[in-house]
Amino acid sequence: MIPGALPSDNAIGIVAGTLTTIAFVPQLYRIVSTRSAHDISWWMFGIMTVGATLWLVWGLATNAVPVIAANVVTLALLALILVLKWRYGRDAAGPGG
Amino acid sequence: MIPGALPSDNAIGIVAGTLTTIAFVPQLYRIVSTRSAHDISWWMFGIMTVGATLWLVWGLATNAVPVIAANVVTLALLALILVLKWRYGRDAAGPGG
Repeated sequence: MIPGALPSDNAIGIVAGTLTTIAFVPQLYRIVSTRSAHDISWWMFGIMTVGATLWLVWGLATNAVPVIAANVVTLALLALILVLKWRYGRDAAGPGG
Repeated sequence: MIPGALPSDNAIGIVAGTLTTIAFVPQLYRIVSTRSAHDISWWMFGIMTVGATLWLVWGLATNAVPVIAANVVTLALLALILVLKWRYGRDAAGPGG
């Protein structure tokens, strides 16, 4: 917990972290259901992965519990999206294409 | 600045915030250059916008400067992506379609 943070601050942080984390779930669902990730940017999700890793380091260094919790789950979801981008992100090709 | 945070912690937070913020730039660029946002999830970017707004509130409440700075810019980029999703995210249609 951040020194000086109020319990209400932590509640806001936990809700914020939950939202910016679960936000990736519908994107995952969309890629799986459409089997298409062509419009997804490698760079966006790659840079986001490096950034989330550093937020995790920052959260651990400052004991910011919501930041730590959010970024552990975010990193797992980003990894799945990157795998699916690799799987479904290529240019569309017909059967045999 | 978070009480008890070291200058090196703030440096990590600033780099982390910069990365998770600029990550949205290549996604914006991809949507603009391909004029397609079909694979982008409304839900992801909508939930992300609500979450970033709450992170901003949390950052202001706890004086977490990197969190404040990152989320102000992130919200602007998310707004642009949502506009472009609205513009280019519909099902593909040929000329006149």
